[in-house]
Amino acid sequence: MGFNFLFSLYMWGFGLSLNKVISIDAMGGDNSPGVSIEGLSIALKNLDNFSAILYGDEEKIKTEVEKNSISKNKIDIIHCNKVVPMDAKPIDAIRRIGKESSMWGCIKSVSDNNSEIAISAGNTGALMGLSAIILKKLDGIERPAIASYWPNKNGRSVVLDLGANVEVSSNQLVQFGILGYAYALTVLEKENPSVGLLNIGHEEMKGTESIQEASQKMKKLFKDNYIGYVEGDDISLGKSDVVVTDGFTGNIALKTAEGTAKLIGHFMSDAFKKSFLGRLSYLIGINSFKELKDKMDPRELNGGVFLGLNGLVVKSHGGTDAIGFSKAIEFSLKLSHSKMSKTIKKLVSKNI
Amino acid sequence: MGFNFLFSLYMWGFGLSLNKVISIDAMGGDNSPGVSIEGLSIALKNLDNFSAILYGDEEKIKTEVEKNSISKNKIDIIHCNKVVPMDAKPIDAIRRIGKESSMWGCIKSVSDNNSEIAISAGNTGALMGLSAIILKKLDGIERPAIASYWPNKNGRSVVLDLGANVEVSSNQLVQFGILGYAYALTVLEKENPSVGLLNIGHEEMKGTESIQEASQKMKKLFKDNYIGYVEGDDISLGKSDVVVTDGFTGNIALKTAEGTAKLIGHFMSDAFKKSFLGRLSYLIGINSFKELKDKMDPRELNGGVFLGLNGLVVKSHGGTDAIGFSKAIEFSLKLSHSKMSKTIKKLVSKNI
Repeated sequence: MGFNFLFSLYMWGFGLSLNKVISIDAMGGDNSPGVSIEGLSIALKNLDNFSAILYGDEEKIKTEVEKNSISKNKIDIIHCNKVVPMDAKPIDAIRRIGKESSMWGCIKSVSDNNSEIAISAGNTGALMGLSAIILKKLDGIERPAIASYWPNKNGRSVVLDLGANVEVSSNQLVQFGILGYAYALTVLEKENPSVGLLNIGHEEMKGTESIQEASQKMKKLFKDNYIGYVEGDDISLGKSDVVVTDGFTGNIALKTAEGTAKLIGHFMSDAFKKSFLGRLSYLIGINSFKELKDKMDPRELNGGVFLGLNGLVVKSHGGTDAIGFSKAIEFSLKLSHSKMSKTIKKLVSKNI
Repeated sequence: MGFNFLFSLYMWGFGLSLNKVISIDAMGGDNSPGVSIEGLSIALKNLDNFSAILYGDEEKIKTEVEKNSISKNKIDIIHCNKVVPMDAKPIDAIRRIGKESSMWGCIKSVSDNNSEIAISAGNTGALMGLSAIILKKLDGIERPAIASYWPNKNGRSVVLDLGANVEVSSNQLVQFGILGYAYALTVLEKENPSVGLLNIGHEEMKGTESIQEASQKMKKLFKDNYIGYVEGDDISLGKSDVVVTDGFTGNIALKTAEGTAKLIGHFMSDAFKKSFLGRLSYLIGINSFKELKDKMDPRELNGGVFLGLNGLVVKSHGGTDAIGFSKAIEFSLKLSHSKMSKTIKKLVSKNI
């Protein structure tokens, strides 16, 4: 009993220290602030170990907060005059729109240590541009990358870059490898993560020169953890825990996978709706259909994290709904509870 | 009745002229010549308006021909001493292995007008290298491309390049656009094909410089038929009839889509196998499941065609089975019956 009491006290202290503050760009995304605040309210029902600072139009935010009955001691609202439009160029978000935007304030709060992580469903290019300006790159990292979960047969892997860098050098690919390795170690909780480089074949002579160079360098750096080239279908097979690629290819691969899943969903509803037996089969197997639907639900994996900066920023899909946004919040909390940031700093300072 | 009689005569004449000769590299692919010859026997059961010249080891081919009871007046066998291994470099296929390979003979038969189209499940790089050497590029085309069907909600589109050219210039992308447009017009039978350029966003400033340049050029050339940038998920949505991209990105996108479909298939069997109701639902809806499985079957779309050469070459997936190979044969016959080659020549000479 004495132990249990001490244990409870310890957990209580631990629980307190686990209380995280996140900052949310309430105005980012296609249907904001409605989606982001309803998303927050869902996340607060699932997890209560955090509070949020909301950046954006105070009036609009207050209306949504009341509509969703969010407790006032769970949030702070910081009014911002401006919003970065979904089609703004990064340079305009930085110079023309500047410090008064909800996106700027949301990221600034991380660099001011007012929050541990910033979340936005806004314009990706602008969010990356502002993040690089405000949080600055880690020493040794030339370009930050966007990383995200990818489902596979055995669980999940991490793929990066998913769209921040259209063209990359071999050194940058190696740096993405280090960032991804730290992610796999701490967020995917793999003891001994394997690293693969995305290419159009497994043979040495495949791909561009910068990929071939990166492969040589990664072999030296990661030794047996580097498994060489992986192909597009190897990602979903889970052939490696980390998949490294440039932002152009990564973005195309991610969206192609999303499109394929949608198409199969469409074929499925088509095949089962049109006959009596198909509809009956659906009714009887409804739990199996639901399980499958959940596994194919892109909202479950919503949230890409910017790696390689002095601070964490999570990008939610711009067109997601409240459930999707709540998943991005839960993902952010998982990141901030993990040792990822520390591990990245250690690995980068040791290896670059 | 007079008309019907004349019509029958016409169709009879038409039917005769429709009898095609194809050449098959019987030794290409992972399990040859077994797979290619069983594939031929399936195709001959479905379609009888063609005959085949088989290139490869005569003894082995004869054994398989007998095993599959293929009528001898439907085939010719040309013995070849050598085989291009699946991992050979193109330069070795051309210089070291040379003219005695089954792959060389198979392509040469098209340039000698002994057959209308060459099919191989062999090494892609070697097949492209030999095709370019033997058939020569069309005037005006700098680099041939690999094109293939892509299923979407409304039917099919064509995507190219799928792996022949790792790096491309803006002019080469425009040339791929012309080749794809001709394919969409004649093989997909679209009256007014739309053309899209694969990119990581719809806005003008997205992507590499060569993509942005290609976009300007395609706008001038295709006018209203050019719909601008399409993203990865737009391919399966069928947003454009033609999707133009470089061979690196196209190959990654194609394989990622295949991997995603496999993963979903895996999730599906998982979800329905583990409960009694799931298994019951499967039994009752077996026809719907079968329809879905057929739609997701990559064998249905087996066969990429090399465009931009003086002659047609179809590449079958190296690891396909006999049904998959038979689909590549049927696809080849569809191509050779279409006006694609003529249309490509006309469009290229008019626009490049």
